[in-house]
Amino acid sequence: MLPPFTPLDPDFDARVRASFDKQAVMSTIGARLTRVAPGEVTIELPFRRDLTQQHGFLHAGIVATIVDSACGYAALTLMPHDAAVLTAEYKVNLLAPASGDVFVARASVLKSGKTLTVARGDAFAVGADEKIVATMLATIMTVRDRGIRD
Amino acid sequence: MLPPFTPLDPDFDARVRASFDKQAVMSTIGARLTRVAPGEVTIELPFRRDLTQQHGFLHAGIVATIVDSACGYAALTLMPHDAAVLTAEYKVNLLAPASGDVFVARASVLKSGKTLTVARGDAFAVGADEKIVATMLATIMTVRDRGIRD
Amino acid sequence: MLPPFTPLDPDFDARVRASFDKQAVMSTIGARLTRVAPGEVTIELPFRRDLTQQHGFLHAGIVATIVDSACGYAALTLMPHDAAVLTAEYKVNLLAPASGDVFVARASVLKSGKTLTVARGDAFAVGADEKIVATMLATIMTVRDRGIRD
Amino acid sequence: MLPPFTPLDPDFDARVRASFDKQAVMSTIGARLTRVAPGEVTIELPFRRDLTQQHGFLHAGIVATIVDSACGYAALTLMPHDAAVLTAEYKVNLLAPASGDVFVARASVLKSGKTLTVARGDAFAVGADEKIVATMLATIMTVRDRGIRD
Repeated sequence: MLPPFTPLDPDFDARVRASFDKQAVMSTIGARLTRVAPGEVTIELPFRRDLTQQHGFLHAGIVATIVDSACGYAALTLMPHDAAVLTAEYKVNLLAPASGDVFVARASVLKSGKTLTVARGDAFAVGADEKIVATMLATIMTVRDRGIRD
Repeated sequence: MLPPFTPLDPDFDARVRASFDKQAVMSTIGARLTRVAPGEVTIELPFRRDLTQQHGFLHAGIVATIVDSACGYAALTLMPHDAAVLTAEYKVNLLAPASGDVFVARASVLKSGKTLTVARGDAFAVGADEKIVATMLATIMTVRDRGIRD
Repeated sequence: MLPPFTPLDPDFDARVRASFDKQAVMSTIGARLTRVAPGEVTIELPFRRDLTQQHGFLHAGIVATIVDSACGYAALTLMPHDAAVLTAEYKVNLLAPASGDVFVARASVLKSGKTLTVARGDAFAVGADEKIVATMLATIMTVRDRGIRD
Repeated sequence: MLPPFTPLDPDFDARVRASFDKQAVMSTIGARLTRVAPGEVTIELPFRRDLTQQHGFLHAGIVATIVDSACGYAALTLMPHDAAVLTAEYKVNLLAPASGDVFVARASVLKSGKTLTVARGDAFAVGADEKIVATMLATIMTVRDRGIRD
Protein backbone atom coordinates (compact mmCIF):
# COMPACT_ATOMS: atom_id res chain seq x y z
CA MET A 1 0.00 0.00 0.00
CA LEU A 2 2.89 2.35 0.71
CA PRO A 3 4.75 3.79 -2.25
CA PRO A 4 8.33 2.65 -2.86
CA PHE A 5 10.73 5.44 -2.00
CA THR A 6 14.01 6.37 -3.64
CA PRO A 7 16.40 8.05 -1.20
CA LEU A 8 17.94 11.36 -2.31
CA ASP A 9 21.06 10.58 -0.33
CA PRO A 10 22.76 7.29 -1.31
CA ASP A 11 24.47 7.24 2.10
CA PHE A 12 21.17 7.40 3.99
CA ASP A 13 21.88 4.22 5.96
CA ALA A 14 25.18 5.41 7.40
CA ARG A 15 23.78 8.86 8.02
CA VAL A 16 20.81 7.56 10.00
CA ARG A 17 23.00 5.23 12.05
CA ALA A 18 25.48 8.00 12.83
CA SER A 19 22.70 10.34 13.94
CA PHE A 20 21.09 7.63 16.07
CA ASP A 21 24.42 7.04 17.79
CA LYS A 22 24.43 10.72 18.77
CA GLN A 23 21.06 10.43 20.57
CA ALA A 24 22.43 10.02 24.08
CA VAL A 25 19.01 9.11 25.41
CA MET A 26 18.92 5.99 23.24
CA SER A 27 21.97 4.46 24.89
CA THR A 28 20.73 5.69 28.28
CA ILE A 29 17.52 3.67 27.94
CA GLY A 30 19.17 0.80 26.06
CA ALA A 31 17.50 1.22 22.65
CA ARG A 32 19.08 -0.18 19.49
CA LEU A 33 18.57 0.73 15.84
CA THR A 34 17.93 -2.62 14.19
CA ARG A 35 16.73 -1.79 10.67
CA VAL A 36 17.15 1.06 8.19
CA ALA A 37 15.51 0.97 4.75
CA PRO A 38 14.17 3.68 2.43
CA GLY A 39 11.25 5.19 4.34
CA GLU A 40 11.42 2.57 7.10
CA VAL A 41 13.20 2.21 10.44
CA THR A 42 12.99 -0.24 13.34
CA ILE A 43 14.18 0.43 16.89
CA GLU A 44 14.20 -2.13 19.70
CA LEU A 45 14.25 -1.69 23.46
CA PRO A 46 14.56 -4.51 26.00
CA PHE A 47 12.31 -4.16 29.04
CA ARG A 48 13.92 -2.52 32.05
CA ARG A 49 12.36 -2.07 35.44
CA ASP A 50 13.86 1.40 35.81
CA LEU A 51 11.76 2.64 32.87
CA THR A 52 8.38 1.60 34.24
CA GLN A 53 5.31 3.52 35.38
CA GLN A 54 3.44 2.86 38.61
CA HIS A 55 1.87 -0.47 37.57
CA GLY A 56 5.13 -2.00 36.43
CA PHE A 57 4.61 -1.52 32.68
CA LEU A 58 7.03 0.37 30.44
CA HIS A 59 6.09 4.06 30.73
CA ALA A 60 4.01 5.32 27.79
CA GLY A 61 6.48 8.16 27.35
CA ILE A 62 9.33 5.72 26.83
CA VAL A 63 7.27 3.73 24.33
CA ALA A 64 6.56 6.99 22.53
CA THR A 65 10.24 7.96 22.68
CA ILE A 66 11.34 4.98 20.60
CA VAL A 67 8.40 5.24 18.17
CA ASP A 68 9.06 8.96 17.74
CA SER A 69 12.74 8.30 16.99
CA ALA A 70 11.77 5.55 14.55
CA CYS A 71 9.37 7.91 12.75
CA GLY A 72 11.95 10.69 12.60
CA TYR A 73 14.65 8.42 11.22
CA ALA A 74 12.26 6.84 8.72
CA ALA A 75 11.72 10.40 7.47
CA LEU A 76 15.46 11.13 7.47
CA THR A 77 16.19 8.20 5.14
CA LEU A 78 14.44 10.20 2.39
CA MET A 79 15.89 13.66 3.06
CA PRO A 80 18.72 15.35 1.18
CA HIS A 81 22.20 14.93 2.67
CA ASP A 82 22.43 18.46 4.08
CA ALA A 83 19.12 18.37 5.94
CA ALA A 84 18.33 17.92 9.61
CA VAL A 85 15.23 16.16 10.90
CA LEU A 86 12.86 17.69 13.44
CA THR A 87 9.63 16.23 14.84
CA ALA A 88 6.95 18.92 14.58
CA GLU A 89 4.28 16.91 16.38
CA TYR A 90 2.95 13.44 16.99
CA LYS A 91 -0.11 11.71 18.32
CA VAL A 92 0.09 8.34 19.97
CA ASN A 93 -2.63 5.92 21.05
CA LEU A 94 -1.71 3.50 23.80
CA LEU A 95 -3.48 0.29 22.89
CA ALA A 96 -2.43 -2.15 25.61
CA PRO A 97 -0.26 -2.17 28.74
CA ALA A 98 3.39 -2.24 27.67
CA SER A 99 4.36 -5.54 29.23
CA GLY A 100 6.84 -7.81 27.49
CA ASP A 101 10.51 -8.67 27.21
CA VAL A 102 11.39 -6.51 24.21
CA PHE A 103 9.60 -3.56 22.62
CA VAL A 104 9.87 -3.09 18.87
CA ALA A 105 9.04 0.22 17.20
CA ARG A 106 8.45 0.05 13.44
CA ALA A 107 7.94 3.24 11.46
CA SER A 108 7.10 3.88 7.80
CA VAL A 109 6.83 7.07 5.82
CA LEU A 110 3.32 7.65 4.51
CA LYS A 111 4.00 10.86 2.64
CA SER A 112 7.35 12.48 1.94
CA GLY A 113 7.10 16.16 1.04
CA LYS A 114 9.72 18.83 0.49
CA THR A 115 9.10 20.41 3.89
CA LEU A 116 6.89 17.97 5.79
CA THR A 117 6.94 14.19 6.07
CA VAL A 118 4.14 12.17 7.63
CA ALA A 119 5.06 8.81 9.17
CA ARG A 120 3.23 6.07 10.98
CA GLY A 121 4.82 4.01 13.71
CA ASP A 122 3.67 1.06 15.76
CA ALA A 123 5.14 -0.37 18.95
CA PHE A 124 4.92 -4.08 19.66
CA ALA A 125 5.61 -5.92 22.89
CA VAL A 126 7.36 -9.21 22.29
CA GLY A 127 7.36 -11.95 24.89
CA ALA A 128 5.58 -15.29 24.74
CA ASP A 129 3.76 -13.72 21.81
CA GLU A 130 3.74 -10.35 20.03
CA LYS A 131 1.06 -7.73 20.55
CA ILE A 132 0.66 -4.14 19.44
CA VAL A 133 0.89 -1.70 22.35
CA ALA A 134 0.89 1.70 20.65
CA THR A 135 0.38 3.42 17.32
CA MET A 136 1.67 6.85 16.31
CA LEU A 137 1.06 9.35 13.55
CA ALA A 138 3.85 11.92 13.31
CA THR A 139 4.66 15.07 11.32
CA ILE A 140 8.35 15.60 10.70
CA MET A 141 10.02 18.67 9.26
CA THR A 142 12.99 18.84 6.92
CA VAL A 143 15.21 21.59 8.27
CA ARG A 144 17.88 23.25 6.15
CA ASP A 145 20.10 26.29 6.59
CA ARG A 146 19.67 26.51 10.34
CA GLY A 147 23.10 25.35 11.32
CA ILE A 148 22.07 21.82 12.24
CA ARG A 149 22.46 18.59 10.29
CA ASP A 150 21.84 14.89 10.62
CA MET B 1 -11.20 29.97 32.22
CA LEU B 2 -11.00 26.46 33.65
CA PRO B 3 -13.75 25.32 35.99
CA PRO B 4 -12.89 24.87 39.67
CA PHE B 5 -12.78 21.19 40.51
CA THR B 6 -13.78 19.44 43.73
CA PRO B 7 -11.79 16.22 44.25
CA LEU B 8 -13.84 13.11 45.01
CA ASP B 9 -11.01 11.75 47.11
CA PRO B 10 -9.95 14.06 49.98
CA ASP B 11 -6.58 12.30 50.06
CA PHE B 12 -5.85 13.05 46.40
CA ASP B 13 -2.58 14.80 47.15
CA ALA B 14 -1.03 11.90 49.05
CA ARG B 15 -2.39 9.41 46.53
CA VAL B 16 -0.87 11.24 43.56
CA ARG B 17 2.49 11.59 45.30
CA ALA B 18 2.55 7.92 46.26
CA SER B 19 1.75 6.86 42.70
CA PHE B 20 4.39 9.19 41.27
CA ASP B 21 6.97 7.68 43.61
CA LYS B 22 6.16 4.28 42.10
CA GLN B 23 6.98 5.48 38.56
CA ALA B 24 10.53 4.15 38.39
CA VAL B 25 11.20 6.04 35.18
CA MET B 26 10.72 9.36 36.96
CA SER B 27 13.58 8.78 39.35
CA THR B 28 15.65 7.26 36.54
CA ILE B 29 15.44 10.49 34.53
CA GLY B 30 15.52 12.74 37.60
CA ALA B 31 11.98 14.18 37.44
CA ARG B 32 10.29 15.61 40.53
CA LEU B 33 6.63 16.20 41.31
CA THR B 34 6.55 19.81 42.48
CA ARG B 35 2.86 20.72 42.65
CA VAL B 36 -0.44 18.89 43.15
CA ALA B 37 -3.76 20.76 43.19
CA PRO B 38 -7.31 19.78 42.17
CA GLY B 39 -7.05 19.22 38.42
CA GLU B 40 -3.48 20.52 38.22
CA VAL B 41 -0.02 19.00 38.49
CA THR B 42 3.51 20.28 37.86
CA ILE B 43 6.55 18.09 37.21
CA GLU B 44 10.12 19.38 36.85
CA LEU B 45 13.15 17.85 35.21
CA PRO B 46 16.67 19.30 35.31
CA PHE B 47 18.55 19.07 32.01
CA ARG B 48 20.79 16.03 31.65
CA ARG B 49 23.12 15.32 28.78
CA ASP B 50 22.27 11.62 28.85
CA LEU B 51 18.66 12.41 27.88
CA THR B 52 19.45 14.39 24.72
CA GLN B 53 18.79 13.82 21.06
CA GLN B 54 21.39 14.21 18.32
CA HIS B 55 21.59 18.02 18.40
CA GLY B 56 22.12 18.20 22.15
CA PHE B 57 18.54 19.17 23.08
CA LEU B 58 16.40 17.19 25.50
CA HIS B 59 14.76 14.42 23.45
CA ALA B 60 11.15 15.20 22.49
CA GLY B 61 10.12 11.83 23.92
CA ILE B 62 11.50 12.78 27.34
CA VAL B 63 9.72 16.13 27.20
CA ALA B 64 6.53 14.26 26.34
CA THR B 65 7.16 11.75 29.14
CA ILE B 66 7.00 14.40 31.85
CA VAL B 67 4.05 16.24 30.27
CA ASP B 68 2.19 12.94 29.86
CA SER B 69 2.76 12.09 33.52
CA ALA B 70 1.66 15.58 34.55
CA CYS B 71 -1.55 15.22 32.51
CA GLY B 72 -2.26 11.77 33.93
CA TYR B 73 -1.75 12.89 37.51
CA ALA B 74 -3.80 16.05 36.99
CA ALA B 75 -6.60 13.69 35.93
CA LEU B 76 -5.98 11.41 38.92
CA THR B 77 -6.49 14.26 41.40
CA LEU B 78 -10.17 14.21 40.42
CA MET B 79 -10.78 10.44 40.33
CA PRO B 80 -12.44 8.31 43.03
CA HIS B 81 -10.09 6.68 45.54
CA ASP B 82 -10.40 3.18 44.07
CA ALA B 83 -9.61 4.15 40.48
CA ALA B 84 -6.45 3.75 38.42
CA VAL B 85 -5.33 6.23 35.77
CA LEU B 86 -4.44 5.24 32.22
CA THR B 87 -3.39 7.47 29.32
CA ALA B 88 -5.49 6.50 26.30
CA GLU B 89 -3.74 8.82 23.88
CA TYR B 90 -2.01 12.16 23.55
CA LYS B 91 -0.86 14.56 20.91
CA VAL B 92 2.11 16.80 21.42
CA ASN B 93 3.42 19.72 19.38
CA LEU B 94 7.10 20.52 19.78
CA LEU B 95 7.30 24.30 19.62
CA ALA B 96 10.99 25.03 20.16
CA PRO B 97 14.23 23.12 20.74
CA ALA B 98 14.27 21.86 24.33
CA SER B 99 17.34 23.72 25.53
CA GLY B 100 17.49 25.05 29.08
CA ASP B 101 18.56 24.23 32.60
CA VAL B 102 15.24 22.93 33.91
CA PHE B 103 12.09 21.74 32.15
CA VAL B 104 8.74 22.37 33.78
CA ALA B 105 5.62 20.47 32.73
CA ARG B 106 2.33 22.02 33.84
CA ALA B 107 -0.93 20.17 33.23
CA SER B 108 -4.56 21.14 33.84
CA VAL B 109 -7.76 19.17 33.43
CA LEU B 110 -10.04 20.68 30.80
CA LYS B 111 -12.90 18.23 31.16
CA SER B 112 -13.37 15.59 33.83
CA GLY B 113 -15.85 12.88 32.86
CA LYS B 114 -16.87 9.65 34.51
CA THR B 115 -14.81 7.55 32.10
CA LEU B 116 -12.63 10.01 30.18
CA THR B 117 -10.70 13.07 31.25
CA VAL B 118 -9.16 15.56 28.83
CA ALA B 119 -6.11 17.49 30.00
CA ARG B 120 -3.79 20.06 28.52
CA GLY B 121 -0.14 20.24 29.39
CA ASP B 122 2.66 22.60 28.46
CA ALA B 123 6.40 22.19 28.86
CA PHE B 124 8.61 25.18 29.51
CA ALA B 125 12.38 25.42 29.34
CA VAL B 126 13.77 27.59 32.09
CA GLY B 127 17.23 29.07 31.89
CA ALA B 128 18.14 32.75 31.45
CA ASP B 129 14.45 33.13 30.61
CA GLU B 130 11.41 30.86 30.28
CA LYS B 131 10.02 29.70 26.97
CA ILE B 132 7.36 27.22 25.97
CA VAL B 133 8.83 24.17 24.20
CA ALA B 134 5.86 21.81 23.87
CA THR B 135 2.11 21.62 24.28
CA MET B 136 0.04 18.47 24.74
CA LEU B 137 -3.61 17.50 24.60
CA ALA B 138 -4.26 14.15 26.32
CA THR B 139 -7.16 11.76 26.86
CA ILE B 140 -6.99 9.84 30.12
CA MET B 141 -9.18 6.96 31.21
CA THR B 142 -10.51 6.21 34.66
CA VAL B 143 -10.02 2.48 35.18
CA ARG B 144 -11.93 0.53 37.82
CA ASP B 145 -12.34 -3.13 38.62
CA ARG B 146 -9.31 -4.28 36.64
CA GLY B 147 -7.09 -5.15 39.55
CA ILE B 148 -4.99 -1.99 39.36
CA ARG B 149 -5.12 1.15 41.50
CA ASP B 150 -3.34 4.42 41.96
CA MET C 1 -1.96 -7.26 9.77
CA LEU C 2 -5.27 -6.37 11.39
CA PRO C 3 -6.95 -9.05 13.48
CA PRO C 4 -10.17 -10.59 12.17
CA PHE C 5 -13.11 -9.37 14.18
CA THR C 6 -16.26 -11.19 15.21
CA PRO C 7 -19.19 -8.80 15.67
CA LEU C 8 -21.12 -9.10 18.93
CA ASP C 9 -24.30 -8.03 17.16
CA PRO C 10 -25.25 -10.26 14.19
CA ASP C 11 -27.33 -7.38 12.81
CA PHE C 12 -24.39 -4.98 12.76
CA ASP C 13 -24.77 -4.23 9.05
CA ALA C 14 -28.39 -3.11 9.27
CA ARG C 15 -27.70 -1.23 12.47
CA VAL C 16 -24.81 0.74 10.98
CA ARG C 17 -26.81 1.58 7.85
CA ALA C 18 -29.82 2.72 9.88
CA SER C 19 -27.65 4.96 12.05
CA PHE C 20 -25.87 6.41 9.00
CA ASP C 21 -29.24 7.25 7.47
CA LYS C 22 -30.04 9.29 10.58
CA GLN C 23 -26.92 11.47 10.13
CA ALA C 24 -28.63 14.39 8.43
CA VAL C 25 -25.28 15.96 7.57
CA MET C 26 -24.37 12.99 5.38
CA SER C 27 -27.28 13.53 3.03
CA THR C 28 -26.73 17.30 3.20
CA ILE C 29 -23.20 16.93 1.82
CA GLY C 30 -24.07 14.00 -0.44
CA ALA C 31 -22.07 11.23 1.29
CA ARG C 32 -22.98 7.56 0.83
CA LEU C 33 -22.17 4.52 2.93
CA THR C 34 -20.76 2.05 0.41
CA ARG C 35 -19.30 -0.77 2.50
CA VAL C 36 -19.88 -2.30 5.93
CA ALA C 37 -17.84 -5.26 7.19
CA PRO C 38 -16.69 -6.36 10.66
CA GLY C 39 -14.36 -3.58 11.79
CA GLU C 40 -14.41 -1.83 8.41
CA VAL C 41 -16.52 0.86 6.76
CA THR C 42 -16.25 2.86 3.54
CA ILE C 43 -17.98 6.18 2.85
CA GLU C 44 -17.89 8.02 -0.47
CA LEU C 45 -18.49 11.67 -1.31
CA PRO C 46 -18.63 13.11 -4.82
CA PHE C 47 -16.88 16.47 -5.21
CA ARG C 48 -19.12 19.49 -4.86
CA ARG C 49 -18.11 23.11 -5.36
CA ASP C 50 -20.23 24.24 -2.42
CA LEU C 51 -18.03 22.24 -0.03
CA THR C 52 -14.71 23.80 -1.03
CA GLN C 53 -12.19 25.98 0.76
CA GLN C 54 -10.67 29.13 -0.67
CA HIS C 55 -8.40 27.42 -3.26
CA GLY C 56 -11.18 25.32 -4.74
CA PHE C 57 -10.28 22.05 -2.97
CA LEU C 58 -12.69 20.10 -0.77
CA HIS C 59 -12.46 21.67 2.71
CA ALA C 60 -10.28 19.66 5.12
CA GLY C 61 -13.13 19.69 7.62
CA ILE C 62 -15.42 17.95 5.13
CA VAL C 63 -12.74 15.37 4.35
CA ALA C 64 -12.39 14.81 8.10
CA THR C 65 -16.17 14.59 8.49
CA ILE C 66 -16.46 11.54 6.24
CA VAL C 67 -13.34 9.86 7.66
CA ASP C 68 -14.57 10.49 11.20
CA SER C 69 -17.94 8.94 10.36
CA ALA C 70 -16.23 5.98 8.70
CA CYS C 71 -14.06 5.44 11.82
CA GLY C 72 -17.06 5.70 14.14
CA TYR C 73 -19.12 3.24 12.13
CA ALA C 74 -16.19 0.83 11.78
CA ALA C 75 -16.12 0.85 15.59
CA LEU C 76 -19.91 0.42 15.81
CA THR C 77 -19.79 -2.79 13.74
CA LEU C 78 -18.10 -4.44 16.74
CA MET C 79 -20.20 -3.00 19.57
CA PRO C 80 -23.03 -4.74 21.42
CA HIS C 81 -26.55 -4.08 20.10
CA ASP C 82 -27.57 -1.74 22.90
CA ALA C 83 -24.55 0.55 22.64
CA ALA C 84 -24.18 3.98 21.10
CA VAL C 85 -21.00 5.21 19.41
CA LEU C 86 -19.27 8.47 20.30
CA THR C 87 -16.05 9.91 18.89
CA ALA C 88 -13.87 10.94 21.82
CA GLU C 89 -11.12 12.49 19.68
CA TYR C 90 -9.31 12.23 16.40
CA LYS C 91 -6.18 13.48 14.72
CA VAL C 92 -5.99 13.97 11.00
CA ASN C 93 -3.05 14.70 8.72
CA LEU C 94 -3.86 16.38 5.43
CA LEU C 95 -1.45 14.85 2.94
CA ALA C 96 -2.40 16.46 -0.37
CA PRO C 97 -4.91 19.01 -1.67
CA ALA C 98 -8.34 17.35 -1.85
CA SER C 99 -8.90 17.65 -5.58
CA GLY C 100 -10.71 14.88 -7.44
CA ASP C 101 -14.11 13.71 -8.61
CA VAL C 102 -14.95 11.41 -5.72
CA PHE C 103 -13.52 11.12 -2.20
CA VAL C 104 -13.40 7.72 -0.56
CA ALA C 105 -12.96 7.31 3.20
CA ARG C 106 -11.89 3.85 4.35
CA ALA C 107 -11.69 3.06 8.05
CA SER C 108 -10.52 -0.03 9.95
CA VAL C 109 -10.56 -0.86 13.63
CA LEU C 110 -7.07 -1.30 15.04
CA LYS C 111 -8.06 -2.18 18.60
CA SER C 112 -11.52 -2.91 19.91
CA GLY C 113 -11.83 -2.59 23.67
CA LYS C 114 -14.78 -2.75 26.02
CA THR C 115 -14.87 1.02 26.47
CA LEU C 116 -12.53 2.44 23.83
CA THR C 117 -11.95 1.55 20.20
CA VAL C 118 -9.06 2.88 18.13
CA ALA C 119 -9.57 3.12 14.38
CA ARG C 120 -7.52 4.30 11.44
CA GLY C 121 -9.06 5.93 8.41
CA ASP C 122 -7.68 7.17 5.13
CA ALA C 123 -9.27 9.44 2.55
CA PHE C 124 -8.50 9.02 -1.12
CA ALA C 125 -9.26 11.37 -4.00
CA VAL C 126 -10.30 9.48 -7.09
CA GLY C 127 -10.15 11.08 -10.52
CA ALA C 128 -7.80 10.22 -13.38
CA ASP C 129 -5.94 8.26 -10.70
CA GLU C 130 -6.29 7.64 -6.96
CA LYS C 131 -4.20 9.41 -4.33
CA ILE C 132 -4.29 9.53 -0.58
CA VAL C 133 -5.30 12.98 0.72
CA ALA C 134 -5.70 12.42 4.46
CA THR C 135 -5.09 9.92 7.23
CA MET C 136 -6.81 9.81 10.60
CA LEU C 137 -6.30 8.08 13.94
CA ALA C 138 -9.46 8.15 16.07
CA THR C 139 -10.54 7.11 19.57
CA ILE C 140 -14.16 6.05 19.81
CA MET C 141 -16.16 5.35 22.95
CA THR C 142 -18.77 2.68 23.51
CA VAL C 143 -21.60 4.40 25.36
CA ARG C 144 -24.23 2.48 27.30
CA ASP C 145 -26.98 3.43 29.72
CA ARG C 146 -27.05 7.09 28.73
CA GLY C 147 -30.34 7.02 26.91
CA ILE C 148 -28.84 6.98 23.42
CA ARG C 149 -28.42 4.10 21.00
CA ASP C 150 -27.20 3.39 17.49
CA MET D 1 -0.23 34.00 28.62
CA LEU D 2 -0.07 34.23 24.85
CA PRO D 3 2.50 36.57 23.36
CA PRO D 4 1.26 39.72 21.62
CA PHE D 5 1.70 39.38 17.89
CA THR D 6 2.59 42.02 15.32
CA PRO D 7 1.17 41.17 11.89
CA LEU D 8 3.61 41.29 8.98
CA ASP D 9 0.81 42.35 6.64
CA PRO D 10 -0.97 45.54 7.73
CA ASP D 11 -3.98 44.49 5.64
CA PHE D 12 -4.36 41.16 7.44
CA ASP D 13 -7.96 41.83 8.45
CA ALA D 14 -9.21 42.45 4.90
CA ARG D 15 -7.12 39.57 3.59
CA VAL D 16 -8.55 37.07 6.08
CA ARG D 17 -12.11 38.23 5.41
CA ALA D 18 -11.65 38.00 1.64
CA SER D 19 -10.23 34.48 1.92
CA PHE D 20 -13.03 33.40 4.26
CA ASP D 21 -15.58 34.67 1.74
CA LYS D 22 -14.02 32.36 -0.85
CA GLN D 23 -14.58 29.26 1.35
CA ALA D 24 -17.78 28.08 -0.29
CA VAL D 25 -18.38 25.53 2.45
CA MET D 26 -18.70 28.29 5.05
CA SER D 27 -21.70 29.86 3.35
CA THR D 28 -23.09 26.38 2.60
CA ILE D 29 -23.21 25.54 6.32
CA GLY D 30 -24.06 29.09 7.40
CA ALA D 31 -20.84 29.99 9.24
CA ARG D 32 -19.83 33.62 9.78
CA LEU D 33 -16.46 35.18 10.52
CA THR D 34 -17.15 37.39 13.53
CA ARG D 35 -13.73 38.48 14.79
CA VAL D 36 -10.25 38.97 13.33
CA ALA D 37 -7.35 40.16 15.46
CA PRO D 38 -3.57 39.53 15.34
CA GLY D 39 -3.25 35.80 16.02
CA GLU D 40 -6.95 35.38 16.84
CA VAL D 41 -10.10 34.57 14.90
CA THR D 42 -13.69 33.75 15.86
CA ILE D 43 -16.20 31.93 13.65
CA GLU D 44 -19.86 31.36 14.52
CA LEU D 45 -22.34 28.83 13.26
CA PRO D 46 -26.04 28.74 14.15
CA PHE D 47 -27.42 25.25 14.78
CA ARG D 48 -29.04 23.60 11.78
CA ARG D 49 -30.84 20.29 11.76
CA ASP D 50 -29.36 19.37 8.38
CA LEU D 51 -25.85 19.34 9.90
CA THR D 52 -26.57 16.86 12.67
CA GLN D 53 -25.36 13.36 13.44
CA GLN D 54 -27.62 10.46 14.39
CA HIS D 55 -28.48 11.66 17.91
CA GLY D 56 -29.52 15.12 16.78
CA PHE D 57 -26.32 16.93 17.82
CA LEU D 58 -24.18 18.97 15.43
CA HIS D 59 -21.83 16.49 13.72
CA ALA D 60 -18.32 16.46 15.21
CA GLY D 61 -16.91 16.95 11.71
CA ILE D 62 -18.85 20.20 11.31
CA VAL D 63 -17.69 21.41 14.71
CA ALA D 64 -14.13 20.59 13.64
CA THR D 65 -14.66 22.34 10.30
CA ILE D 66 -15.31 25.71 11.91
CA VAL D 67 -12.56 25.31 14.52
CA ASP D 68 -10.10 24.24 11.80
CA SER D 69 -10.98 27.31 9.72
CA ALA D 70 -10.65 29.54 12.79
CA CYS D 71 -7.18 28.07 13.53
CA GLY D 72 -6.07 28.48 9.91
CA TYR D 73 -7.22 32.08 9.73
CA ALA D 74 -5.70 32.91 13.11
CA ALA D 75 -2.42 31.70 11.60
CA LEU D 76 -3.01 33.69 8.39
CA THR D 77 -3.31 36.96 10.32
CA LEU D 78 0.42 36.70 11.04
CA MET D 79 1.68 35.55 7.63
CA PRO D 80 3.33 37.71 4.97
CA HIS D 81 1.02 39.15 2.31
CA ASP D 82 2.10 36.75 -0.46
CA ALA D 83 1.61 33.55 1.56
CA ALA D 84 -1.14 30.96 1.45
CA VAL D 85 -2.32 29.05 4.51
CA LEU D 86 -2.58 25.26 4.63
CA THR D 87 -3.62 23.05 7.55
CA ALA D 88 -1.02 20.30 7.90
CA GLU D 89 -2.83 18.42 10.64
CA TYR D 90 -5.07 18.84 13.66
CA LYS D 91 -6.28 16.89 16.64
CA VAL D 92 -9.64 17.55 18.19
CA ASN D 93 -11.18 16.30 21.43
CA LEU D 94 -14.96 16.27 21.59
CA LEU D 95 -15.80 17.24 25.15
CA ALA D 96 -19.59 17.32 25.21
CA PRO D 97 -22.48 16.70 22.81
CA ALA D 98 -22.76 19.67 20.45
CA SER D 99 -26.24 20.82 21.43
CA GLY D 100 -27.07 24.52 21.49
CA ASP D 101 -28.40 27.39 19.41
CA VAL D 102 -25.11 28.80 18.18
CA PHE D 103 -21.62 27.34 18.03
CA VAL D 104 -18.66 29.64 18.51
CA ALA D 105 -15.14 28.64 17.46
CA ARG D 106 -12.33 30.72 18.96
CA ALA D 107 -8.75 30.16 17.84
CA SER D 108 -5.44 31.65 19.00
CA VAL D 109 -1.92 31.24 17.70
CA LEU D 110 0.36 29.63 20.25
CA LYS D 111 3.55 29.73 18.20
CA SER D 112 4.15 31.49 14.91
CA GLY D 113 7.14 30.19 13.01
CA LYS D 114 8.49 30.92 9.56
CA THR D 115 7.16 27.67 8.14
CA LEU D 116 4.85 26.24 10.80
CA THR D 117 2.28 27.85 13.06
CA VAL D 118 0.65 26.07 15.99
CA ALA D 119 -2.81 27.23 17.04
CA ARG D 120 -5.33 26.21 19.65
CA GLY D 121 -9.05 26.45 19.07
CA ASP D 122 -12.08 25.80 21.23
CA ALA D 123 -15.71 25.40 20.25
CA PHE D 124 -18.47 26.53 22.56
CA ALA D 125 -22.17 25.78 22.38
CA VAL D 126 -24.25 28.78 23.34
CA GLY D 127 -27.87 28.42 24.38
CA ALA D 128 -29.33 28.99 27.86
CA ASP D 129 -25.70 28.97 28.93
CA GLU D 130 -22.29 28.49 27.29
CA LYS D 131 -20.32 25.27 27.45
CA ILE D 132 -17.16 24.05 25.78
CA VAL D 133 -17.84 21.22 23.33
CA ALA D 134 -14.49 20.71 21.62
CA THR D 135 -10.84 21.69 21.76
CA MET D 136 -8.33 21.54 18.92
CA LEU D 137 -4.58 21.73 18.51
CA ALA D 138 -3.57 22.44 14.89
CA THR D 139 -0.39 22.72 12.84
CA ILE D 140 -0.63 25.16 9.95
CA MET D 141 1.87 25.68 7.17
CA THR D 142 2.88 28.93 5.50
CA VAL D 143 2.98 28.18 1.79
CA ARG D 144 4.85 30.37 -0.68
CA ASP D 145 5.81 30.07 -4.33
CA ARG D 146 3.30 27.33 -5.10
CA GLY D 147 0.92 29.41 -7.17
CA ILE D 148 -1.67 29.84 -4.42
CA ARG D 149 -2.34 32.81 -2.17
CA ASP D 150 -4.75 33.95 0.53
